Amino acid sequence: MDKEKRIVILVHGGAGAKKANKAQIKVLKEALQAGFAILKNGASSLDAVETAIRLLEDSCRFNAGLGSKLQLDGRCRMDASIMEGQDLRAGAVAGIEDVRNPIHVARWVMEETHHVLMAGEGAVKLARFFKMKKALPPTRASLKVLKETLRSEKDTVNLYHSMYDHETVGAVALDRSGTLAAGASTGGAGAMLPGRIGDTPLIGSGVYADNESGAVSMTGLGEGIIKAGLAKEICCDLLQGMSPQRATEKALKHLLVRIHGEAGAIVLNRKGGFALLHTTPYMCAGYQTDQQQTVVAAKFRQIT
Amino acid sequence: MDKEKRIVILVHGGAGAKKANKAQIKVLKEALQAGFAILKNGASSLDAVETAIRLLEDSCRFNAGLGSKLQLDGRCRMDASIMEGQDLRAGAVAGIEDVRNPIHVARWVMEETHHVLMAGEGAVKLARFFKMKKALPPTRASLKVLKETLRSEKDTVNLYHSMYDHETVGAVALDRSGTLAAGASTGGAGAMLPGRIGDTPLIGSGVYADNESGAVSMTGLGEGIIKAGLAKEICCDLLQGMSPQRATEKALKHLLVRIHGEAGAIVLNRKGGFALLHTTPYMCAGYQTDQQQTVVAAKFRQIT
Repeated sequence: MDKEKRIVILVHGGAGAKKANKAQIKVLKEALQAGFAILKNGASSLDAVETAIRLLEDSCRFNAGLGSKLQLDGRCRMDASIMEGQDLRAGAVAGIEDVRNPIHVARWVMEETHHVLMAGEGAVKLARFFKMKKALPPTRASLKVLKETLRSEKDTVNLYHSMYDHETVGAVALDRSGTLAAGASTGGAGAMLPGRIGDTPLIGSGVYADNESGAVSMTGLGEGIIKAGLAKEICCDLLQGMSPQRATEKALKHLLVRIHGEAGAIVLNRKGGFALLHTTPYMCAGYQTDQQQTVVAAKFRQIT
Repeated sequence: MDKEKRIVILVHGGAGAKKANKAQIKVLKEALQAGFAILKNGASSLDAVETAIRLLEDSCRFNAGLGSKLQLDGRCRMDASIMEGQDLRAGAVAGIEDVRNPIHVARWVMEETHHVLMAGEGAVKLARFFKMKKALPPTRASLKVLKETLRSEKDTVNLYHSMYDHETVGAVALDRSGTLAAGASTGGAGAMLPGRIGDTPLIGSGVYADNESGAVSMTGLGEGIIKAGLAKEICCDLLQGMSPQRATEKALKHLLVRIHGEAGAIVLNRKGGFALLHTTPYMCAGYQTDQQQTVVAAKFRQIT
């Protein structure tokens, strides 16, 4: 795993108690292959990460982009972030509505503004001004699911948990120039308070990339990931020379023991070594390198 | 500096090119003494940090709380965060309007919700629902300053820089039980795009506290602090046993060399050792311990 000039991409489709279905596994494989093709053409890891995540956002198979779950008030609020490890450039959006690809708006915040994180109406206005693709109106099926959930579930705590989806998507990649990138995108938690921001758009919490250490994309219960500063914590240990497996295992164990958190991570170091680990029963994810076939699965190693 | 059971508090009033005036130094001293009195009574570092920051917010001498600068559209959008190091509990608000004490709303998000970060209208609604004190309407003086700036400055880049205020406030403290806490509050950058979120409300970027390592409150150009994940980076090095001076110097040098950032930091470790450092010409700040008199100054050691 330590050969120089490797190209590698990893993607995930969320960590949780539910096993991914076949359609989700198929889309993850397509996203991996689309991202990998970009790396193989000599393009940047940023392009590979954005392409893979856009494909997942457009697939309607995950809680991100077009597939974002309706929240209790019938609206979708989405978060996304992207970062590259050469100059530590980063962009993110939080609570953005009515755009098709939050990851693309995040990339645009990174490339075209002096800011890193744009939230709410300000982020929506930017996307409108630059004529980014709008989301589609909610489907009858998704409105029906929301109606039925609201009707059948009388207990608000159960309602909260029944709407806490874990199908965030993310990707990390290493390109031929040795630059790492990381990104993530989510439709948020269905029953959260409007205005809540989770880990996905927060640099150092849900996503981090630094050519001196590694690239990380997290998924799981956002609040715990924020409190532990997990993406940056893993990168700090990679910088000390720890392997991706060891650094990720250490961070997830710390999360479990210290604050009873719940998370999954895909982690890539600057030499192309990588890890896919989760504290949940499942995390659908996959990887592709120039030395191996595409691997996609509904679970990897669970840390307990 | 390594004696156990010390009590210590540090505050800052922002880092930048401008030297703090006497009124600012006086208020910083009052905030330090108010926070220290709380620690001396055996109360928590969280209470000490919140009290010191509330006093600074209410003073109108800094760009936070009642003193928040009007943005280009004549509105104030404020950010704040607070964290404690025992259980890594944290709360934050971003882009909140028309509340008197953003740090108090952040504390409330931490204590009373399952979330960490609440932004925009959602955060305002929460504050309204729980009847938190409102802000005062903009003073004639502040409207006059905004009008004159808009009239006299034709160059938008100069306008941007002339409105980029660095008077964020923050505090870190260690109480008799050995628990660390950190917090920060800001009125944001005057000429920022509406919806921009800086480092102040982001756990791991502007603020972090962990009893296993230390407590950090940052100030400066928020975007660079986010990209570097500075608060968490310093805590990672403290965890390795590095001294607060050494860890802070290393992080600020890294910020300077890698991304030409600009920042100041107040840092406290679990044994009560501390550091106040900045890359800017000035950072007004101070400290008080049970072994020394109150020290407040317009600058400490500059890292170049």
